[in-house]
Amino acid sequence: MTRSRDVPTLIARAREGDARSVARLITLVENGDEALPQVAAALAPWAGRAQVIGLTGSPGVGKSTTTNEVVRALRRAGHRVGVLAVDPSSPFTGGAILGDRIRMQDHTTDPGVYIRSMSSRGHLGGLAATTPQAVRVLEGAGCDVVLVETVGVGQAEVEIASLADTTLVLLAPGMGDAIQAVKAGILEIADVFVVNKADRPGADATYHDIQGMLSLGERGPGEWRPPVVRAVAVKNEGIDEILAAIEKHRAWLVSSDRLRLRREARAAAEVEAIALGTLRARLGSLREGTGLSDLAARVADGRLDPYAAAEELIKGL
Amino acid sequence: MTRSRDVPTLIARAREGDARSVARLITLVENGDEALPQVAAALAPWAGRAQVIGLTGSPGVGKSTTTNEVVRALRRAGHRVGVLAVDPSSPFTGGAILGDRIRMQDHTTDPGVYIRSMSSRGHLGGLAATTPQAVRVLEGAGCDVVLVETVGVGQAEVEIASLADTTLVLLAPGMGDAIQAVKAGILEIADVFVVNKADRPGADATYHDIQGMLSLGERGPGEWRPPVVRAVAVKNEGIDEILAAIEKHRAWLVSSDRLRLRREARAAAEVEAIALGTLRARLGSLREGTGLSDLAARVADGRLDPYAAAEELIKGL
Repeated sequence: MTRSRDVPTLIARAREGDARSVARLITLVENGDEALPQVAAALAPWAGRAQVIGLTGSPGVGKSTTTNEVVRALRRAGHRVGVLAVDPSSPFTGGAILGDRIRMQDHTTDPGVYIRSMSSRGHLGGLAATTPQAVRVLEGAGCDVVLVETVGVGQAEVEIASLADTTLVLLAPGMGDAIQAVKAGILEIADVFVVNKADRPGADATYHDIQGMLSLGERGPGEWRPPVVRAVAVKNEGIDEILAAIEKHRAWLVSSDRLRLRREARAAAEVEAIALGTLRARLGSLREGTGLSDLAARVADGRLDPYAAAEELIKGL
Repeated sequence: MTRSRDVPTLIARAREGDARSVARLITLVENGDEALPQVAAALAPWAGRAQVIGLTGSPGVGKSTTTNEVVRALRRAGHRVGVLAVDPSSPFTGGAILGDRIRMQDHTTDPGVYIRSMSSRGHLGGLAATTPQAVRVLEGAGCDVVLVETVGVGQAEVEIASLADTTLVLLAPGMGDAIQAVKAGILEIADVFVVNKADRPGADATYHDIQGMLSLGERGPGEWRPPVVRAVAVKNEGIDEILAAIEKHRAWLVSSDRLRLRREARAAAEVEAIALGTLRARLGSLREGTGLSDLAARVADGRLDPYAAAEELIKGL
């Protein structure tokens, strides 16, 4: 637990770019620390400063390599970048900020990049609450782009990616990936498709599979049609095209007022997750006290029915 | 959904022993019908009338056969018996009351026995809420013994069994079952151990394994030491011994005042599960209205932090 008086200092240092303070704030988020409401209140003024880019795909499509190259390009363009890796299969889970990702070691000495693996352990609202809050910390620390990397396997991870401003879905040739994407529901959330490893056999087939599936969907006038970008991240090929697609999508988000709607949807999911977590914790703490046991005694001997008891319990919250 | 005016009729018919009405009431419980608070209120006067016996064990230890023989013996002793099979691996899940269990067809024409497979689909509070409520329905229908059969695999199923007045844990020789029982945490919840298939090789070893483990546990004076009963359910051997052990445990529960404590714990778990389900549903319905979207808009542009918004959301419940 963090003492309340530490919070202003932590925030002030994070604002100045102190990586250790940023790391500690994200740890508070991950652990569901009791100082979190105070942290959230202090960070609110910087909400919405960063462009949030989701990046998802099955294991083995080259997410980390692509993230690495995208970060490099963003740094060249002068951006301060945060990376959140929400990846249960990642060997880096639970590590400290900076230096916790082997494949991203290019950036570990760059003070303009924060890199963090996220886990949901301990947090009341799960990843739906932790990820937006970690984004807030990075916004407060001056990041103007935050990349959220998730594995497109679990529904929770897909939902997190879909809460970004722009969601990239990575595919690779072979492995029936395009079909898998449909099954996993990640086709619907893609704003930009990236066919990575595009120099491998089958890349054209994957490209045309996706284009074919996109043609089937009906779109009204002014709707976004996800572009499909070919890339070979390990050779730094196609990275500029990915950035161009992201920029084009951002321009559409702004002109169509969808940016506001997406961010409100993300905030709504976050608030709902926090509220449910809070309620669950309060019910749990009632178990310790006498309120629940009195009700339970009356239910057990038939003086009260369990629904009426549940209503009384809720009133006591 | 059930119309409120149907509920008194359903309850009255169930009280008279009409199996179809009992079946419909349990279906309401399973589906989390909106008439449930009314059903619960109407059933409250009969709460606690039945002795609730939990029966759990790994797949293949002979749970259904044992339940079948125990039911037969209870019927001979003049009891009205309800059976709830909370078994995700059961082929009978979702069936109607009576006649839905092939191996229990001995009893399907007996009006003194209600048999029902339970599933948790749709219910807000999950099995922790549905099982006690289904017990209430059977109590209302005049059952004085209710057997709750679960598979000792998932933690949820183990918890349900442990909420009974008396919990039987079935083991069978071989398969390292005694060790498995320790791992699965079902050793702690057993009030009576049954080594079924006791005519098979290895039965003695299993018997002594359990006795050995029970010797290791420290017990204060007046504490219950679970007896270990040998049985061959398919040959109807050991069934009287099982019933004798249950009766002995019940006498101890009453004399030590543990029966009241167990039933209050069961009621507390039920009330808590209903309360959490209700709160989750109310949060979900706020998503439809304007309350959450207003808050989300203020969070998205930094006028409000998400914790303060969650507090406002909770106040609106």
